[in-house]
Amino acid sequence: MAESSNFVDLAHHLSPETLVRKANPLKDLIRVALENPHLVTLANGNPHSSLSPFRRVDFEVASLTATDDPVSSWRALGPSAPTQSLAVGDPSDAESTQLLRASMQYGHGAGLEQVLRVVADLNAFYHTAPAHVVTMTLGNADAITKVFRLLGAPGDYFLADEFTFGPMPLAADAHGVRWVPVRIDAGGIIPKELERILEEWDPERGRRPHVLYTTPCGQNPTGSTLSLERRRRIYELAQRFDFIIVEDDPYYFLQYDLPNTPPADPAKPFPTSFLSLDVDGRVIRIDSFSKVLAPGLRLGYITTAPLFRPHLVNLIDFSTQNPSGLPQVLLTQLLGPGGWTLAGFDRWVRSLRHDYQRRRDHFLALFETHVASTGWAVADVPEAGMFFWVRVFVERHPRFHASAPCTDANGSGGQARVVARSNAKEFMAELFEACVAAGLLVCPATIFVLPTDGTFDSESIDDRSNFLRLTFAGSEETMNAGIPILGKVLNEFFGNPGKPDQSD
Amino acid sequence: MAESSNFVDLAHHLSPETLVRKANPLKDLIRVALENPHLVTLANGNPHSSLSPFRRVDFEVASLTATDDPVSSWRALGPSAPTQSLAVGDPSDAESTQLLRASMQYGHGAGLEQVLRVVADLNAFYHTAPAHVVTMTLGNADAITKVFRLLGAPGDYFLADEFTFGPMPLAADAHGVRWVPVRIDAGGIIPKELERILEEWDPERGRRPHVLYTTPCGQNPTGSTLSLERRRRIYELAQRFDFIIVEDDPYYFLQYDLPNTPPADPAKPFPTSFLSLDVDGRVIRIDSFSKVLAPGLRLGYITTAPLFRPHLVNLIDFSTQNPSGLPQVLLTQLLGPGGWTLAGFDRWVRSLRHDYQRRRDHFLALFETHVASTGWAVADVPEAGMFFWVRVFVERHPRFHASAPCTDANGSGGQARVVARSNAKEFMAELFEACVAAGLLVCPATIFVLPTDGTFDSESIDDRSNFLRLTFAGSEETMNAGIPILGKVLNEFFGNPGKPDQSD
Repeated sequence: MAESSNFVDLAHHLSPETLVRKANPLKDLIRVALENPHLVTLANGNPHSSLSPFRRVDFEVASLTATDDPVSSWRALGPSAPTQSLAVGDPSDAESTQLLRASMQYGHGAGLEQVLRVVADLNAFYHTAPAHVVTMTLGNADAITKVFRLLGAPGDYFLADEFTFGPMPLAADAHGVRWVPVRIDAGGIIPKELERILEEWDPERGRRPHVLYTTPCGQNPTGSTLSLERRRRIYELAQRFDFIIVEDDPYYFLQYDLPNTPPADPAKPFPTSFLSLDVDGRVIRIDSFSKVLAPGLRLGYITTAPLFRPHLVNLIDFSTQNPSGLPQVLLTQLLGPGGWTLAGFDRWVRSLRHDYQRRRDHFLALFETHVASTGWAVADVPEAGMFFWVRVFVERHPRFHASAPCTDANGSGGQARVVARSNAKEFMAELFEACVAAGLLVCPATIFVLPTDGTFDSESIDDRSNFLRLTFAGSEETMNAGIPILGKVLNEFFGNPGKPDQSD
Repeated sequence: MAESSNFVDLAHHLSPETLVRKANPLKDLIRVALENPHLVTLANGNPHSSLSPFRRVDFEVASLTATDDPVSSWRALGPSAPTQSLAVGDPSDAESTQLLRASMQYGHGAGLEQVLRVVADLNAFYHTAPAHVVTMTLGNADAITKVFRLLGAPGDYFLADEFTFGPMPLAADAHGVRWVPVRIDAGGIIPKELERILEEWDPERGRRPHVLYTTPCGQNPTGSTLSLERRRRIYELAQRFDFIIVEDDPYYFLQYDLPNTPPADPAKPFPTSFLSLDVDGRVIRIDSFSKVLAPGLRLGYITTAPLFRPHLVNLIDFSTQNPSGLPQVLLTQLLGPGGWTLAGFDRWVRSLRHDYQRRRDHFLALFETHVASTGWAVADVPEAGMFFWVRVFVERHPRFHASAPCTDANGSGGQARVVARSNAKEFMAELFEACVAAGLLVCPATIFVLPTDGTFDSESIDDRSNFLRLTFAGSEETMNAGIPILGKVLNEFFGNPGKPDQSD
C-alpha cells in the first residue's frame, strides 16, 4: 500500500541514537538467512518449541451476544454474566497451535504477524491512514519513551501541552531533551500560540522544535479535546515548520456527547485523528488497549509512516523486544473471527463510552450541586477521557494578590525566566492540604506542569495553576463521598480567609 | 532481611539519567495516598476492574506427576502427554480472582507482589543472597538495557568479554557508553587480563570502568563457563577496583557434565553464582525464563542490593512499566502450591539440562567424526549453554600469513589502534561464504566482537577471530544434516588452497 502514499522524506528527524542502533552486527547473518531459507542452520540458539511446557491457554472473556450494551450487562450481571472462551494451542486446530507456538518463541520487534494484521484492520476501521504501518508496544508509556528516543537527541527541544501527564516528559528529560510549553485552553492547544512560538524561535537557543507531543482527546489533565478545525490548523503548522506530531491518544474511544445537545447518532463516528489527516507521514500515532480492555495487558501499538518502522523495530529489538506472546495472542483471538471480531470490539467500545458518559454525568450533577453552587470553582464538561479540570477562583479570596510587579530577576529581556506574579500556587497548596485534612485526595495542577527552563512564557504558569484534576473513572460511591467534601472544603477555605498562621 | 547485610554504599555508581528520573512529579501525591489510605480519592484515572472483559484464564501446562524426567516424556508423548491446568480468575477462589484483577490493573514497576514472592523464593533456593531484592523484567535484553542506563553515563567505559552476543553492547553504545574488551579463553574471563586493564588504566582516558558485564555460564558465543576460582578472583578485583558485576546468566540452568568424568550426582548443585559471593551489594544478577520456559513469555528478573531497586523501578515506571499481567500470573501459578511448586520447577530444569546434554553429546559425536577428524578445526566441550565455539586452524592453510610486521598506523604508542597482522579475518569470511554455498548457515566470530575503539588490545582481535559458533539447541536431524557439511567444506577449503580469484 505504501506505493499510494505521497509521504515526504522525514529521515532528517531521526536521532543519532536511532542511527547507532541501526548497526546491528547480526544483520548480515539475518539477511543471508532470509535470502537462503533452504540452508541447514546451526546458527541460532533458540530453544526448541517442544521444550516449552505450555500446551494451551483458554481466555474466558465477556460474551457480546446477549445485548446491545455489553459493558452494562457485563457489569450488572457480575460473575453470572455470560462469557465466551478463546483458546490458543487447541491440538485439534493447527492454526491455533501454530499461533501459540509462534507466540512462545523469540519474536520480531514489530510484534506477531497475526496481531499486526488485526491491529492494521482496526486502524483501517477507525482512521484514514492507507500507507501507515503498525508496530506493537507495551502500552503508551513504553511507546512514548521509544518515540522520544527515535526522534530526540540531547539538547533538542520538543513542544508539548503546558499541562501534561507528569511522568511522560520525564522519559525525554532523562534523555536530554528539553520542553517548550504550548498554551492550552478548554479546547486544547491554541494554534496561534503554537504558531507564535515557532515564528519567534530564536536559532541561538538551538534547533527549532521538530516534535510536538500532544494528547488530542480527553487530554490528561485538562480533559480538553481538539476540534477538527484546530487539528487541521496544527497540521498545517506542522507542514509549514516541518515538525512531527506525536499523537498520544489513549482516550480516543472514550468520547461523549456534550450536555444540552441531542443524543448522538449510534453511528456517530469517533473523532478525526491527526493520523487521518496525515498526508506527509509526519504523524506518529500511539494507541493503547489499557483504557478499553485492561491496563495490565501492557499492550498498545504505534502507527507511523513506513520510513520510521525499521528504526523503531531496532529500538525494540535492542531493548524490550516484542511484547509478551500471551497478550498478543489474546488480542489476536479476541478480535479474530472466533472472538468478538472487529464489529464486536466496536460494540464494546461504544458501550464502554456510554458507561463512562454515565459516570461523567453523575459526577457533573454532583459537581453542580456541591461545588459549582459555592461560587468558588467551575469546570468545563469534558467531551472525552476521564477528567474534570476544575478551576478554583483563587482571585476571589481576600488574601489573594494578583499583581505583584513583574519582578523578573533578569529584567524583562526575552529569554529571562518569568516569575510568578500572584500567590495562586501557594493558595492551591493550602487547598490541597485542606482537602487531605478533610479526607479527600485530588490532583493539584502543579504536578502536571511541563518541566521547562521557564524562559518561554510571557506569564508564569504558576499564576495559571489554580486548577484541580478530578476523575470520574471511579465508582458512584466514591464520587458521592468525595465531591461533597470538596464543596465543604472550598466553603471553609474561602469563608475563613486570612486565618492566623499559627493555626496548626 | 536487609538488616543482616553489610553492603557498602554504591550510590556513586548511579548514572545522571537515573537521578533525573528520580524526580517523579507524582511522588508527593503517591506518598500522601500511601500515608492516608482512608482518603476518598478522585485523583487516579484507573479504569475500574469491572470494565475489564476478562473473567478467567486457564493455562494448560506439562504435568510433572508421571516421571522423573518430565522433559523427556513431555517431548516423547507429544500431544498425548499429560497436562495440568492452572487457572486465574476462578470465581470460586477469591485469591485467584484477586490475582487476575490485580494483574489486569495498572501495576508497580517492580512487578506483581505475588510473582515477586515466587521469584524471591526461587533465588533463595539456588543462591545465597540474603539481603538482595528482586524486580521483574521483560527478559534479559530489557534487563540489560535498563541496568546499562541505571549505571552508565555517556562517556563511561564498561568492561565486557571480548566476544559477546552482538545486540547487547548496542544497548549501551546508543547510550554513549564505550566498551573495554577483556580477554577470554575456554574458561571465560582471564582474571589476570582484567587486573592488568584496571591497574594500567590511564585516567586521561576518563573514569576507570565501574561496570563489568559478563555471562558466566555457557557464554554466548564461546560456550565457556567461569570456574568458582575465577569467580572469586574476579569478585576480589571488583572489590579492589570498586566496580559492579552485571551477571547476565540465561544459561544458568543448562549446565552439563564434562565427558569422561563420572555422571554427576542427581543432587549436583548448579554453579555458584556471582550473586552468591556478593557481600558488598555490587553484583546485579539478571535471570530469564526464556531458556527454561519459553522466550515468548518475555519474563525475567533482576536481583540487586536494595539500594538500586527504587532507581530501577523509576526507570521501569517511566518507560516500559511492569511486565504484562498474563506472564506474571502464569509464573505465579506455575511455581505456586497449585502448580509445579519450586520443587517441581527444579525437576523440570534438571530434566531440561539432561535433554540439552543429550543434544550436546549428539553434536559432539558428529563433530568428532566429521569435523575434528579433518584436522582443520577443533572445539572445547561446553559445560553449559547452547554453543560450541569451533576454532578453525587457519594457520594450516597455505595462503595464510600470520606475521605481517606490526604496521600500526600510529606507530607503537600505547593508545594507538592495533591493526590485524594476519589474514585470518579474510579467511573466515571466505569460509563463511563456502558454508553458505554448500547449504549451511553458521555464525562467524566477527559478529560477536565487542565494538570498541580498538585502543585497548596489544593484539588485534581480528587475528583471533578464527572461530565459528555452532549451536546444539536444534534437532538431531539438523545436526545430522549440518555437521557433515562443515567437514566437507573444511576439507575442500583447505584441500584447494590458492584457487584463482576469478572463480565466482
